[in-house]
Amino acid sequence: MIRIVILGTGNVAKHLFDAFLTQKGIETIQVYGRKRSSLIYFEEQTNVTSDFSKIKKADLYIIAISDEAIAKVSKQLAHLKGLIVHTSGSVPMTALASETRRGVFYPLQTFSTNKKVHFREIPICLEAENELDYKLLNKVASAISDKAVRIDSDQRKSVHIAAVFANNFTNHLYHTAQEVCNQNEIPFELLVPLIKETAAKIEYLSPFDAQTGPARRNDTGTIEKHMANLRSQNHKDLYSLLTKSIQSTYGKKL
Amino acid sequence: MIRIVILGTGNVAKHLFDAFLTQKGIETIQVYGRKRSSLIYFEEQTNVTSDFSKIKKADLYIIAISDEAIAKVSKQLAHLKGLIVHTSGSVPMTALASETRRGVFYPLQTFSTNKKVHFREIPICLEAENELDYKLLNKVASAISDKAVRIDSDQRKSVHIAAVFANNFTNHLYHTAQEVCNQNEIPFELLVPLIKETAAKIEYLSPFDAQTGPARRNDTGTIEKHMANLRSQNHKDLYSLLTKSIQSTYGKKL
Repeated sequence: MIRIVILGTGNVAKHLFDAFLTQKGIETIQVYGRKRSSLIYFEEQTNVTSDFSKIKKADLYIIAISDEAIAKVSKQLAHLKGLIVHTSGSVPMTALASETRRGVFYPLQTFSTNKKVHFREIPICLEAENELDYKLLNKVASAISDKAVRIDSDQRKSVHIAAVFANNFTNHLYHTAQEVCNQNEIPFELLVPLIKETAAKIEYLSPFDAQTGPARRNDTGTIEKHMANLRSQNHKDLYSLLTKSIQSTYGKKL
Repeated sequence: MIRIVILGTGNVAKHLFDAFLTQKGIETIQVYGRKRSSLIYFEEQTNVTSDFSKIKKADLYIIAISDEAIAKVSKQLAHLKGLIVHTSGSVPMTALASETRRGVFYPLQTFSTNKKVHFREIPICLEAENELDYKLLNKVASAISDKAVRIDSDQRKSVHIAAVFANNFTNHLYHTAQEVCNQNEIPFELLVPLIKETAAKIEYLSPFDAQTGPARRNDTGTIEKHMANLRSQNHKDLYSLLTKSIQSTYGKKL
């Protein structure tokens, strides 16, 4: 039996907790949260605490809290013998207290409060300082996901940057599209099937090959008309830079 | 029975043809294509021709060809009595020959050759010069889709601009993410679940509310580290502008 303590009560903590619940070889023996009120979600099914001095002995401590707080919380665990990991894409493993056995357990997904996730399909990027600890992480990750991968801190930094493009920036373009719709009294819902299909395509077509549109065709007439129709300078700047980037990707003259 | 002639043999033509096949009140009586070879897909199930002089009498002519060729092809149909529509998001209805009954039948989706689409969920943006013609278009669109909407040429221009952000530019960000992965020997497949979930979220959360990431948190430390790690100037330019755009959207100081 692998005994786990989860530190944190946010979306990642909740989704991990739920995923571990159904695994026979794994038991979440405790959840730590600063506020008692945030522990309600967990307290019927495991021990909960808001007191660092009451943290139980475990094989693995998963720190699933905001990036800024990771180093500080890990210091509170410096006396413990178990493996201590965080779940962040952008924080190096070495941010954890140096006295501890350290690692990273980074699920590469965007989590929302009320949306169930299928952990089986979520890549979990693992890192540990020694081989035995890596094996423990791999055992835990493989129990809930089919996609456990070993990634060092440098690679994880790049994975996180790629994820910023693929998730954060993409979502901002959805928002920009919605602003264009709102300005012209068009329901944003019209775009939902298009957005979903654009994402679905990457499973069978590389984004390079899937590219379409006026910039890809170097259709300067349409590009100029679009630029003239955009009402905010911010939209014009985004349209212009992304268009140039597509044109240069496909070797068209700028 | 509504008799339709489709002009064009590309993805939109094929997907429309297939969608009409199963509709009892609609018959595609002919498909026109410049090249005989491109008509193979259709010829077992309907009449095909490469000769404008042999185009049959129909209730509706759907021109599903590249934007640049629409005006020219519509002139070849100027003698016909049926309603003539194109399927483009960015071409005004008035690009069609003025002697004809004109309209637009614009399915708001990205079509690929080998991927089946569910037309029921695809919005079809309709426009016509008179009410009777609009009713005909609405009847045809509603037969294959649950989302027929009336949109005039001005609005359609804006829909198309919004679609460029939501589809073309988004896909280019997927490509950029893949470049970052390739530069760091990370398999792009790791990002696929994230990309799909980011798109799936918009069905229950507005993109404004769904926004996460270093720019949203105004986490300047992470932003600076990411900028320093990006290897190409193009990636830096995209990262910088999209970050600024997110920061200004959420009212952070730049």
